[in-house]
Amino acid sequence: MRDVSIIGIGQTPVLENWEKSLRHLAADAVLAAMHDASIDRADMLFVGNMLSGEIAGQEHLGTLVADFVGLRGIEAFKIEAACASGAAAVRMGYLAVAGGMADIVIAVGVEKMTDESGEVVTAGLALAADGDYEVPHGLSFVAINAMLMQRYMYEYGLERADFANFAINAHRNAAGNPNARFHNQITAEQFINAPTICAPISLMDSSPIGDGAAAVVLCPTEQARAFSSKSVRIVGSAVATDSIALHDRKNPLRLLAAEQSAYKAYRQAGIGPQAIDFFEYHDAFTIMAALSLEASGFAEPGQGTRLAREGEIFLDGRLPTATMGGLKGRGHPVGATGVYQIVEAAMQLRGECGPNQLPAPRFGMTQNIGGSGATIITHILRAEE
Amino acid sequence: MRDVSIIGIGQTPVLENWEKSLRHLAADAVLAAMHDASIDRADMLFVGNMLSGEIAGQEHLGTLVADFVGLRGIEAFKIEAACASGAAAVRMGYLAVAGGMADIVIAVGVEKMTDESGEVVTAGLALAADGDYEVPHGLSFVAINAMLMQRYMYEYGLERADFANFAINAHRNAAGNPNARFHNQITAEQFINAPTICAPISLMDSSPIGDGAAAVVLCPTEQARAFSSKSVRIVGSAVATDSIALHDRKNPLRLLAAEQSAYKAYRQAGIGPQAIDFFEYHDAFTIMAALSLEASGFAEPGQGTRLAREGEIFLDGRLPTATMGGLKGRGHPVGATGVYQIVEAAMQLRGECGPNQLPAPRFGMTQNIGGSGATIITHILRAEE
Repeated sequence: MRDVSIIGIGQTPVLENWEKSLRHLAADAVLAAMHDASIDRADMLFVGNMLSGEIAGQEHLGTLVADFVGLRGIEAFKIEAACASGAAAVRMGYLAVAGGMADIVIAVGVEKMTDESGEVVTAGLALAADGDYEVPHGLSFVAINAMLMQRYMYEYGLERADFANFAINAHRNAAGNPNARFHNQITAEQFINAPTICAPISLMDSSPIGDGAAAVVLCPTEQARAFSSKSVRIVGSAVATDSIALHDRKNPLRLLAAEQSAYKAYRQAGIGPQAIDFFEYHDAFTIMAALSLEASGFAEPGQGTRLAREGEIFLDGRLPTATMGGLKGRGHPVGATGVYQIVEAAMQLRGECGPNQLPAPRFGMTQNIGGSGATIITHILRAEE
Repeated sequence: MRDVSIIGIGQTPVLENWEKSLRHLAADAVLAAMHDASIDRADMLFVGNMLSGEIAGQEHLGTLVADFVGLRGIEAFKIEAACASGAAAVRMGYLAVAGGMADIVIAVGVEKMTDESGEVVTAGLALAADGDYEVPHGLSFVAINAMLMQRYMYEYGLERADFANFAINAHRNAAGNPNARFHNQITAEQFINAPTICAPISLMDSSPIGDGAAAVVLCPTEQARAFSSKSVRIVGSAVATDSIALHDRKNPLRLLAAEQSAYKAYRQAGIGPQAIDFFEYHDAFTIMAALSLEASGFAEPGQGTRLAREGEIFLDGRLPTATMGGLKGRGHPVGATGVYQIVEAAMQLRGECGPNQLPAPRFGMTQNIGGSGATIITHILRAEE
């Protein structure tokens, strides 16, 4: 097994981008990553995407994007794992490079969601849940997360306000990220008074959808130096799944797949959670941020919100999270999100985060979640020494 | 790089199966393949599927299927490459095993298409084509193939009757396959008098959609004997892409991606086309069978129909094709088709094809085509000596 490095990164701003088609968005990110890596060829391309067929009227994205970026002919596929599709594409690239089946692989996550009505998007997102046993009973995706949040508050005696800092932190960090969807900071009062989407989840617990694409170029670490002086190592890459339906889990508040993928990634990297300098979690809803912190070993069960309440997750805290805004602030173009997380982690390790830059971080962790915790993909990146 | 073998195969009949959900179909095939391989665990699962979101109301198939077959927790993804999604799933499994990233991998192709109206299915299939430059002009998938067939007949001075034996052979072979959608044989007269779908393509040039699933279990060849006495080697596995839109190709009658993937597979296998004992081509339409034969080195340009006319493609011919009915006779549940082809090729090499069994074939080739030739995946299987 070969060590794998990221030698190029690229991203588009997350916004309502009605000017550009899906292929344009993907190409913007891929070409930026190829330019960053100083490459003009690749062996394989993996496209992470969830809803192109349902929303953008296009499947077959592998060949579509390969052709459009000037790589006609290469092996190329679309990978889907609901909201974890982005990290899934990176994971496929990692498998190919680590296994010696390819030398240069591009992974891009892309999603174009704002051309359609909210109804279509809500129905599309529900395809991540159980189509036979959850959706027919009227569960939307926010409803599933609302049940989790309600249960969490009940079990641990918490209030909505305990989640405020997840959103405040995300918005504050997004303000320093030119590619983020939101640049407005929010107050605890605004969080508390935000309109309810599905009780107890309010607008301020929820990440916005958006149009966007992010890409990375991977190659064997031993070849990385020839391409880039700014390469970043992938020292952990792990995937675990769980039941697709919430009701099939013994303890729905325990993200078993997060636990399994995080600890597998820790073992690969030869470190424990205490060595992680920052964490790009999957804060599609604030409850997911809390559960993710707990499952990944950063907090005891029920204590995830404490890290937020005590400011440990802020840029100057013990474990900075969502350092470029997270899903809540940067935005959540679902199939692209996992690659945005990895691109942002690489930027932190390369020292390119401007006002949000952490002081010389060494290990960054990303966690991309599909469904209500059914597919969870953890990557650990390390700065090149 | 490790050699890879198929140690288990499974499939469901292709039909209108309104009794079973997508996950049931997939599970039937996966559990049969696991039983065949004598395994009760796997490291990874890849699900090839094109239209589950659009037609079956479900994405996130990796975790859905993994959980339902009793493999909750393992790494699992959906792979999409239009009608080549099935072989794409096998290809991902091959990458993982050959590269040493996993020991036991299951690849399943599944599609459930008959619950929806023809209109929805036709719109779904068009997602394989260019959504910006082909579909908005009214091109359906059969229309794209009709343009190819028309051009082919014009260039080479052929008539519709020249394609008859592709369909006659497919129906004849399907009659000997209990899992095929069709069991009726057809005559040259029936072929000629079949109703036109989109001139010059008639009903008898066209493969039927259907519900179905097929699965294979892969492992390193060096471990294969421990699981199965009937293993089959994958000696060639190659993917190439082309422009997604037909109008972007210099010569639309040349399936460049078929040529590239076939010759890459030949090189891997250390053989040429003359060593192939039978060919499971992608006869979604008869024109695709002809183009595929030519691009893969079995006939000169314009001569693909000659192989059909002269009976070379029959079970007793020089190059038997569609030996279990092909897409035309067995049926074409799009995302499953590529795995059906590989399962059937493995059956031939294992000597399990009943009335359709070829006498001791050594090398079998499968070719799965996405779109109008935009993603083409070729596999060469070899009987274990």
